[in-house]
Amino acid sequence: MSTALRVGVAGLGTVGAATVQLLAGQNAMLAARAGRLIEVTAVSARDRRKNRGADLSQMTWCDDARELAALDDVDVVVELIGGADGIARDLVEAALAAGKHVVTANKALLAHHSTALAARAEAAERVLAYEAAVAGGIPIIKAQRDGLAANRVLRLHGILNGTCNYILTVMRETGRDFHDVLEEAQRLGYAEADPAFDVDGIDAAHKLAILASLAFGRAVDFDNVHVEGIRHISPIDLAYAEELGYRIKLLGIAEDGADGVTQRVHPSMVAKTSPIAQVDGVFNAVAVEGDAVGATLFQGRGAGAGPTASAVVADLVDIATGRGAPVFGVPASALLAAQPAPMDRHRSAYYVRLMVTDRPGVLAEITAVFRDHHVSLEAVVQRARDPHGPVPLVFTTHETEEAAMAQSLARIAGFDFSLEPPRMIRIEAF
Amino acid sequence: MSTALRVGVAGLGTVGAATVQLLAGQNAMLAARAGRLIEVTAVSARDRRKNRGADLSQMTWCDDARELAALDDVDVVVELIGGADGIARDLVEAALAAGKHVVTANKALLAHHSTALAARAEAAERVLAYEAAVAGGIPIIKAQRDGLAANRVLRLHGILNGTCNYILTVMRETGRDFHDVLEEAQRLGYAEADPAFDVDGIDAAHKLAILASLAFGRAVDFDNVHVEGIRHISPIDLAYAEELGYRIKLLGIAEDGADGVTQRVHPSMVAKTSPIAQVDGVFNAVAVEGDAVGATLFQGRGAGAGPTASAVVADLVDIATGRGAPVFGVPASALLAAQPAPMDRHRSAYYVRLMVTDRPGVLAEITAVFRDHHVSLEAVVQRARDPHGPVPLVFTTHETEEAAMAQSLARIAGFDFSLEPPRMIRIEAF
Repeated sequence: MSTALRVGVAGLGTVGAATVQLLAGQNAMLAARAGRLIEVTAVSARDRRKNRGADLSQMTWCDDARELAALDDVDVVVELIGGADGIARDLVEAALAAGKHVVTANKALLAHHSTALAARAEAAERVLAYEAAVAGGIPIIKAQRDGLAANRVLRLHGILNGTCNYILTVMRETGRDFHDVLEEAQRLGYAEADPAFDVDGIDAAHKLAILASLAFGRAVDFDNVHVEGIRHISPIDLAYAEELGYRIKLLGIAEDGADGVTQRVHPSMVAKTSPIAQVDGVFNAVAVEGDAVGATLFQGRGAGAGPTASAVVADLVDIATGRGAPVFGVPASALLAAQPAPMDRHRSAYYVRLMVTDRPGVLAEITAVFRDHHVSLEAVVQRARDPHGPVPLVFTTHETEEAAMAQSLARIAGFDFSLEPPRMIRIEAF
Repeated sequence: MSTALRVGVAGLGTVGAATVQLLAGQNAMLAARAGRLIEVTAVSARDRRKNRGADLSQMTWCDDARELAALDDVDVVVELIGGADGIARDLVEAALAAGKHVVTANKALLAHHSTALAARAEAAERVLAYEAAVAGGIPIIKAQRDGLAANRVLRLHGILNGTCNYILTVMRETGRDFHDVLEEAQRLGYAEADPAFDVDGIDAAHKLAILASLAFGRAVDFDNVHVEGIRHISPIDLAYAEELGYRIKLLGIAEDGADGVTQRVHPSMVAKTSPIAQVDGVFNAVAVEGDAVGATLFQGRGAGAGPTASAVVADLVDIATGRGAPVFGVPASALLAAQPAPMDRHRSAYYVRLMVTDRPGVLAEITAVFRDHHVSLEAVVQRARDPHGPVPLVFTTHETEEAAMAQSLARIAGFDFSLEPPRMIRIEAF
């Protein structure tokens, strides 16, 4: 057995602590699988006194994580600090420059800087691995890059944020509203004190941009991800979805089509019977459609200490055994340029909910607008009657262009009988 | 870019032809991903004149597949002949002996001889890859071995045979009986002319034994897989399952417990809402439960030319890039001995259906038998009344020991009011 792989861990939050514990606790099993010992030789965190559930006494302690990049007895730096810039980025760049491999769970860093980082890793002939950055414990990076290597990926879609999926699941099951369930999720530790990153779709967009790069062999293009979060989803929409045979999920969807690459994160209605509709609670799932393999679906826990540490340590086993691959499946120099497809040309079916005054003529005015913009309606649901208050008016459309829908809704919003902003949710056919 | 990886393909049926087509058609994409060209230099099949949908004119033709092992311009032999012994085994052994890597889709060969083959591959320092042998296009071998390498696997279960899943799905959806649907599956090409291998569970058992070896780090132990097929599943059982909140699936289940390793393939009732219950038709799925990652599920097409070729070519990309791993995740010498848990000690909940004469006292006699064997009943369903013919009598039980259930059913079968053999289906809680 060759010499041990020596690891420096930056960040000892729940994931970092779980990683150190896993490497210590499964030492022998991992050595058998990796062909050599994997041992943590150095760590860095803010508070030296905090109990991490592991014996750190034999490890070098760095108050500044960037010091890990300079340590002689570190072969791999594990970056679990987070953030697109600052210490995390400094550390990763310094580690690669110092000839160390890097394992990171940092989706923000990769979404913003991965093309440059991939080039640095390649120039240094070092591995930059990031299984933990997308979909937690689901080995979706290796599945796409290695397992589906024979495929041209046509399209992928996924539930990439467990916080949103948890909130939408509880809202559907209980009829409670967004803010109520968000507060509960915060109490349970499923949502951050500042939930914007999750509920506004940014976290999912980071992950989608990474998956799309790997899938289509193109440079990461986070700036062109169309992003909508779940703040506007109301119990009434979940109830209508149920009635119409759909579930509402925050999906990340990427497609490499004739117009370029579409990348979008938004609430989506999917048929109740579709595989992705069954994925509830904090679980994530990624569906990849390849030209040879057809439809595949990978699901598991998208966050949490154990699942994320599982992904981090799998990357370490890969490095220990010498299994490697270009960061995005092909050499950085071979990555195609980003080629964003214009979102206003995107075609979709839509669910639209209006809150209107209940008086004669309203339906005629609305349908005239849709007609003017060539939006073909599939169904209209108008049931509640209430001359004193707003009543919901729900439409579903056949496939139409995003721009036509946007223009229609802008006009409808301007009518005096429109009492609330129109709500629109895209309907996806998976 | 280094020299091309040269491939010899043995067997040009649908999978072999699709493999040759894929390697030719995606030549450039695969070279970018693999870091070198992958080219087919030699092929072998029975009929030289048959059109394979690819240009074979530049390839060496071998009438006897075993000749591929001796060709100088072949680095990897792809074995797609099938069968546990005979030419397939001769070829794989000869190829490894000649210092060639091997990629195979042959589950029967691996189920019977893989421990010896793994040792040979290791001694020769060559790769023996078999992604295509289990669950077709789902990259479950790499997912388990690489993606979940940080986990001690506690349990796995899967739908491992698409033919059975298709038949059970159509039976449930249409109410038609087994033989009727089997005939249709044969006409559609989803089932072989001799369906025994599939419908009796042997094919699923081969795959389960391979997955269990990889999961638990133990020598493949096909002989100790408990196997039951789906011939006895009748529309009435599917209807009762539906009513009781279950779906019937042919599952392969493996668990490494205190008593040893349980490996079993049999029809199983699973809650309608469980992820595995949603996997219908020709799709396969494998659920792996790891100590760090928790529950994961991988699904996709389990057979067919495209999905299987996808898996074969992914193995070739691994070999081309130098990504390798021990055949069963750890060195052959480190594999633990098989340690089968006795099936009669297995504990499960059960569904039991009897066909009995509709007369007073029957229920008392049956429940007395269950009482004698300490089988605790959860529910009894007796609805149809027909003094002239057999009526179904359905029980579900709490968890009980397999031996107690077998003894109970043997006694019940002996009563004169038992008009058909009792049917028993295990109920799994996933």
